[in-house]
Amino acid sequence: MRKDLERFFNPRSIAVVGASQDLITISGQPLQHLVSHGYAGKLYPVNPKYQEVLGVKCYASIDALPETPDLVLVLINAARVAGLLRDCGKRGVPYAIVFSSGYSEVGGKGIEMQRELAALAAEFNMGIIGPNCQGMINVASNVYAGFGSVFFAGYDAGAVSMVSQSGGFGFSVMNLASKDGGVNFRQMVTTGNEIGVSTLDFIEYFIDDAKTDVIAGYIEGLKDARRLVDVGRKALAKKKPILAWKVGNTPQGQRAAASHTANLGGAMALYQAAFKQTGIIQVEDIQDVVDYSRAFRCGKLPKGNRVAIITVSGGAGILMTDECVARGMQVPQLSAATTEKLKTIVPSFGSILNPVDVTAAIFNDLSLIRRTLQAILDDPNIDAIAMINASLQGDLAANIASEITEIAQHSDKPLFLAWSARDELARDAYAKLDALKIPHYKSPVRCGRALAALSSYAEALRREDIRLKESAPVLSVAGVQTLLADRSDDLSEHAAKRVLAAYGIGVTRETLATSAAEAAVAARAIGYPVVLKVQSPEIPHKTEARAVKLGVDSDAAVAAAFDEIMRNARAYKADVRIEGVLVQEMVDGGIEAILGVTNDPLFGPAVMFGLGGIFAEVLKDVSFRLAPVTKSVALEMIDEIKGVAVLNGARGAAPADIEALADAIVRVAAMAVDLENCMAELDINPLFVLPQGRGVKAGDALIKSWQKS
Amino acid sequence: MRKDLERFFNPRSIAVVGASQDLITISGQPLQHLVSHGYAGKLYPVNPKYQEVLGVKCYASIDALPETPDLVLVLINAARVAGLLRDCGKRGVPYAIVFSSGYSEVGGKGIEMQRELAALAAEFNMGIIGPNCQGMINVASNVYAGFGSVFFAGYDAGAVSMVSQSGGFGFSVMNLASKDGGVNFRQMVTTGNEIGVSTLDFIEYFIDDAKTDVIAGYIEGLKDARRLVDVGRKALAKKKPILAWKVGNTPQGQRAAASHTANLGGAMALYQAAFKQTGIIQVEDIQDVVDYSRAFRCGKLPKGNRVAIITVSGGAGILMTDECVARGMQVPQLSAATTEKLKTIVPSFGSILNPVDVTAAIFNDLSLIRRTLQAILDDPNIDAIAMINASLQGDLAANIASEITEIAQHSDKPLFLAWSARDELARDAYAKLDALKIPHYKSPVRCGRALAALSSYAEALRREDIRLKESAPVLSVAGVQTLLADRSDDLSEHAAKRVLAAYGIGVTRETLATSAAEAAVAARAIGYPVVLKVQSPEIPHKTEARAVKLGVDSDAAVAAAFDEIMRNARAYKADVRIEGVLVQEMVDGGIEAILGVTNDPLFGPAVMFGLGGIFAEVLKDVSFRLAPVTKSVALEMIDEIKGVAVLNGARGAAPADIEALADAIVRVAAMAVDLENCMAELDINPLFVLPQGRGVKAGDALIKSWQKS
Repeated sequence: MRKDLERFFNPRSIAVVGASQDLITISGQPLQHLVSHGYAGKLYPVNPKYQEVLGVKCYASIDALPETPDLVLVLINAARVAGLLRDCGKRGVPYAIVFSSGYSEVGGKGIEMQRELAALAAEFNMGIIGPNCQGMINVASNVYAGFGSVFFAGYDAGAVSMVSQSGGFGFSVMNLASKDGGVNFRQMVTTGNEIGVSTLDFIEYFIDDAKTDVIAGYIEGLKDARRLVDVGRKALAKKKPILAWKVGNTPQGQRAAASHTANLGGAMALYQAAFKQTGIIQVEDIQDVVDYSRAFRCGKLPKGNRVAIITVSGGAGILMTDECVARGMQVPQLSAATTEKLKTIVPSFGSILNPVDVTAAIFNDLSLIRRTLQAILDDPNIDAIAMINASLQGDLAANIASEITEIAQHSDKPLFLAWSARDELARDAYAKLDALKIPHYKSPVRCGRALAALSSYAEALRREDIRLKESAPVLSVAGVQTLLADRSDDLSEHAAKRVLAAYGIGVTRETLATSAAEAAVAARAIGYPVVLKVQSPEIPHKTEARAVKLGVDSDAAVAAAFDEIMRNARAYKADVRIEGVLVQEMVDGGIEAILGVTNDPLFGPAVMFGLGGIFAEVLKDVSFRLAPVTKSVALEMIDEIKGVAVLNGARGAAPADIEALADAIVRVAAMAVDLENCMAELDINPLFVLPQGRGVKAGDALIKSWQKS
Repeated sequence: MRKDLERFFNPRSIAVVGASQDLITISGQPLQHLVSHGYAGKLYPVNPKYQEVLGVKCYASIDALPETPDLVLVLINAARVAGLLRDCGKRGVPYAIVFSSGYSEVGGKGIEMQRELAALAAEFNMGIIGPNCQGMINVASNVYAGFGSVFFAGYDAGAVSMVSQSGGFGFSVMNLASKDGGVNFRQMVTTGNEIGVSTLDFIEYFIDDAKTDVIAGYIEGLKDARRLVDVGRKALAKKKPILAWKVGNTPQGQRAAASHTANLGGAMALYQAAFKQTGIIQVEDIQDVVDYSRAFRCGKLPKGNRVAIITVSGGAGILMTDECVARGMQVPQLSAATTEKLKTIVPSFGSILNPVDVTAAIFNDLSLIRRTLQAILDDPNIDAIAMINASLQGDLAANIASEITEIAQHSDKPLFLAWSARDELARDAYAKLDALKIPHYKSPVRCGRALAALSSYAEALRREDIRLKESAPVLSVAGVQTLLADRSDDLSEHAAKRVLAAYGIGVTRETLATSAAEAAVAARAIGYPVVLKVQSPEIPHKTEARAVKLGVDSDAAVAAAFDEIMRNARAYKADVRIEGVLVQEMVDGGIEAILGVTNDPLFGPAVMFGLGGIFAEVLKDVSFRLAPVTKSVALEMIDEIKGVAVLNGARGAAPADIEALADAIVRVAAMAVDLENCMAELDINPLFVLPQGRGVKAGDALIKSWQKS
């Protein structure tokens, strides 16, 4: 697949196949938009019906063109697209946008037709965008290559580039953000059914594009999802924040997504995991793109998550505090030195706690604002400032904006403003802030949200710095791949745990016994009490088969339990294949967790962690990460679950061995990578997490081998 | 306290005490604003320094006025306010707004001064608003009685009335909602420290105000919080939706609220409970007030929560689906009849699932829109429609708006639009929708949110209808109030459970024994195995004192356990007062829940429910309601916790006796009402919820008597 997208966004020549003289129609619009917005390259309408369109000479076919165009816009009926693309391929056309619909989104024959387009793209190494898309706009170069209402307007070039799997929604984001939100876009491309150049291809291009500062994406699903983590990390390395919608988050939304572009990717949990691992910021609405883009435009990143709030409205201060704290920031006490300074500035009916309520009195003496801001910017306990100016307007507003910019420009700490005056009443003030790229918002809630987005991005960068200094172990155990490769059935407990042990993951002491006598010998060696369980690939649910005995505490009891288990197993399923009875130590004093691997067809191996029983099964209180993971990421996974207090020693229990647990997570992830091609699923349930210093032990485990479909 | 707020909002005369000729100052502004906005009543500046202000005759004192003003604006130093209010009281002034600061918000002497104002309000039955507030605007009558930037603008009267404990934030809501959001306000009042007329007084007035359709409130805390449920229900009865901010939701936010107006009320959980019980809609930001007010303006309420989404943009349809489902709506399949009709309308590359993707082709034939809308409005499976028109603009947009209004006006089902065209490009279209009060939003997310708010309000009305047909039992048990009234210590298990049993709540079978022999007799009567526990008001944590024995299964074991418990209890605390040893049935097969009562100083008694152990203590997975509650509300409480699946039979367990559990909740709430004046707290932990048909049994209980402070 072609990746030199520079040429796609800046084509020297464009052919418009199916160009129509009826300028209102979908096939009539693109040429019109290219012309009217002043596209500087060569234009070649292609349509055997016309001599010219819009005064531009029209050609009968791709073959008839005087040169090979850099980009072909395909506006013809779906049935004729494959033939055309073959012509393009032969001619050496590098890029084509297929606007036509009627492919996988309609099912049936459409799926076959779409496959044909993909094959042509591969055959001719042609970059195909679409089908079923709405085109692209490169504002910076006046390339308006698409159709729709928003193409009739002209835009100013900015530093946000966006890729969207939805045309209608994507272009509405660009239109509203630019025109009403004051956040201009640089490039906007829609990918529709995405058979060729993908969302991640475009994001990679935007990362490398020097004039793109912020990247936005609307994602229904990624067919190349396993690249997401690498692409996200590349963006982190280049400090280009990615703002992303991931839609289809509810079962109904997923159904809608599936019937829309058939782009449905891996489970939402894995997208969320990838986003966390790479600092991708999820957005909910258009306003978020506007607000967060303004935040990133400030060019400053807080060194920590501690914000000082300065307000003339107590109420707005509370709202912002709630918002910042809910989104992971701290609103800490100011240092003693700062507090002393503020005592000489803030009136007695104000507050020198954080939020600092300076009251409207501060507006009577501009020097007070400067001194307040300076004192707080100098505070080593503070990483960012949010100031609330209520509805202050007019000349006073402009003067205050001057004071603020004066102070802010000499600090590397971000300063955000919640300022509710309407644009027309604070034009000068806002212009002064905009000139210095100081973010300002009409509501304290939006201001707090945007600052928190900036802060969480800065935190993702700090986390990434730590991760880069660590290394995820690469584990490889001889024989396991072979063991799993040819199996059609699951690896049951005893075998699965030997695999775990080989990867350095703690398991219970245990012996497989095939007679009551062997069982008793094993039990004595392990020490009473013990657990006895049937081992059979045909009995995944041993308890249900009444083939488990806990707390067996003597030789005689072992013999009786052995016989009973064998009897019950055979009663459960006639002619059942039994490997033996596992004699196992009885683990005491551990917290039951679950640790597993999902080998997702789109994302590849991911590791999952949670507490056992109801926590995971009923409350879905689990965390995911894509493998491999380093220690710090494993610790994040542990810290992320709501039940973490149980591991930290809630309800009087001893704190659990978090270190050993993190190590086990890291090892399981490394194992998942090693066995990626043969292990479909691993389920350790329970994993006993013992008290500090005593490690973890897999109590039961199941490995499903990869069923190639 | 005065409640005839009609006169406050429409005063025939206003005195402005402390009026200043310096019109920019806080004391100079109110008179200026009243004059410039055309206040029609009499104005009396009061200031001994001046003969006149703004050409209006000025008086030296309240006494010197030619008549008693309906409203006095107090703009003088805090130290002089009490004296002035006494003069006002003597003169029979009904209402005064105290703008002055320096009261409880500064602590110390300010608290004392504030108390004095409250006493004067009571003495003279004077309605005091404030202190530390920013005044009020009655747009409809041109009464602009306050100060601040937003007073310099003029507003058009609408149907939203708002009360805010924050001046700066409250007025910014009115300003932005009216001027930029197109939602006009009728009345806006700020209450500051709220010593007199309260937020709930104003909300009650707005409920009765015929021209107010929607009520908004910004709440830090309510000192009269126990009225919240009654006021909320009154609003439900009059079908006046209340949109409310409750701020101070995080510990840091609460600290900020406390240092702001010292308005801190009961715990957030009880506010949330009251909101749920009365359909009060929580808002997060100014835009919510705009969006939801537009939603309610449509005048139609959906009969259920099933929405059909019609879209020309698949992507926007997915976003809206996610948003609606996440907020409690259903996006169901359309009926077979509707599907058949749509097959003749929707192109093959569209979708006739829900969301219905009609594709842009629909715009080519206006009759298709009419037929699609009609078919879906006629569908009995559908209660509301959300239609997404992407960025459609110009004449076509206007024509389509005509089709939509034509169909919508003949249906009682709400029809909402997500329409992203900028205002200036779809002015005619939007004007047609506005004329028929059809809500439209620029983003599908905001549209979905607003529709979900309307839907959840309609659901609250349906729930209230059910509740009104039920009745919460009134329980009263002789002697219990007396038992609790004079106690300083807690009622321990055995006594507490006798109280529970008296209120008809299931408890374990048990007998208090004072000797080993008595214990054995009791155990035999109950049946083995039994539980033995020490009973002592001085040992609240019996397990910690090693004074509990489970699974005691013979006479000999009972005797041994009795002795051991007594020994351990005495070792735990020397000279401990022991009531005896409780011999109790050992409950098998129940799910452990907790059920409790908090008697909040502000809200009064509230009942809390959750699952036992980690669920409640670590995960805080509990639900609250203010007492009393009816059966349907108790069932809501059960359904609301995340762990409800455990009760419904998760993980292969038998479904629990939900009916009996709901009955226990209802009875505990009734008991809480009966014992409101003597019981501070009840804690049933565990409450065993047995399988269906077998009821519930309190396993342990504790009652704390009311410690009058």
